[in-house]
Amino acid sequence: MTVLEIVTRSREEMLDITAPLQALVRESGIQSGLLAVQSPHTTLGLTVNENADPDVQKDMLGHLRALVPQSPSFQHREDNSDSHIKVSLVGPSLTLIVENGAIQLGTWQGVYAMEFDGPRRREIWVQTIGTRTP
Amino acid sequence: MTVLEIVTRSREEMLDITAPLQALVRESGIQSGLLAVQSPHTTLGLTVNENADPDVQKDMLGHLRALVPQSPSFQHREDNSDSHIKVSLVGPSLTLIVENGAIQLGTWQGVYAMEFDGPRRREIWVQTIGTRTP
Amino acid sequence: MTVLEIVTRSREEMLDITAPLQALVRESGIQSGLLAVQSPHTTLGLTVNENADPDVQKDMLGHLRALVPQSPSFQHREDNSDSHIKVSLVGPSLTLIVENGAIQLGTWQGVYAMEFDGPRRREIWVQTIGTRTP
Repeated sequence: MTVLEIVTRSREEMLDITAPLQALVRESGIQSGLLAVQSPHTTLGLTVNENADPDVQKDMLGHLRALVPQSPSFQHREDNSDSHIKVSLVGPSLTLIVENGAIQLGTWQGVYAMEFDGPRRREIWVQTIGTRTP
Repeated sequence: MTVLEIVTRSREEMLDITAPLQALVRESGIQSGLLAVQSPHTTLGLTVNENADPDVQKDMLGHLRALVPQSPSFQHREDNSDSHIKVSLVGPSLTLIVENGAIQLGTWQGVYAMEFDGPRRREIWVQTIGTRTP
Repeated sequence: MTVLEIVTRSREEMLDITAPLQALVRESGIQSGLLAVQSPHTTLGLTVNENADPDVQKDMLGHLRALVPQSPSFQHREDNSDSHIKVSLVGPSLTLIVENGAIQLGTWQGVYAMEFDGPRRREIWVQTIGTRTP
């Protein structure tokens, strides 16, 4: 397992982690197989979505905030129940296809850490599995 | 990696891809392992849900539309921010168990491509990993 | 593939399955690899979230109930379309990293079966893949 360290800058944020993940896959030497990406945090999720227009990320974070707002009516006293709920909605982990020594993604796709209770220092855990022969 | 090609017929649709996925697993010769299924599109998601009563699919698509409607208040100018958001909610990828040379699914389960911005020609990317000996 | 049997006690419930999953990984002898966890039911989902304050679970289930209520306006006649929708939102499967012979989880993380149409006897299907040498 490899650990990727990231820093988020606001309470809610989508951070593109595609490039460091591709670098980890290259260093692993895996040619064909799978990449598992996992958040060890209960208020940081992971997703794949559009990497072209930054407005998509604003719309995503804004609409998630409207669907699951911070609210004093939650019983959990740390004022971040909304963050926990959003993580279970977008998901705490991803499995991506590795072929030709690289994560396979569509033209407009990037891999994103979704921060829901930042800003914080965070870890992303990564495991590669597969064959090394090309 | 193998590519499955599908065609969707409406803006929002659930397309059962269980049979072609099972065929791909058979052709791979994998007896025991995992199947990773990935959408290379930012407005097409993947899920597993009921394959018996088609009304479940209508209820799912209808309720997702109510939770995340198309809206002029989104900033992304392609009028499909709702589609991007729905993909991150249902998920862009799946990992399924392969045993005895077949994807293992419950009695009422099917694997579905969830189209949120169709109709379009789409690809589904598939990777098998595991052992070939029975 | 291994089958884990659980019993849920209410219509909606989060059941911590971390300990039995860790036991299955130990018994498998896998030192480094992946664990795939899959729900064979269309009204039972899987997630990873906070295992410290039980109020988080109450807030999660309560807010999901508010976002996707049981409703006579659904067309599916079994009165559980809400349950099907919730499963596709939280997800029907998980892939987790195995290292040093154990599932790798953050300090506050537990693996949860999310029952949305209980109480019932349920199965959780589990597959390990990886290397046995430490």
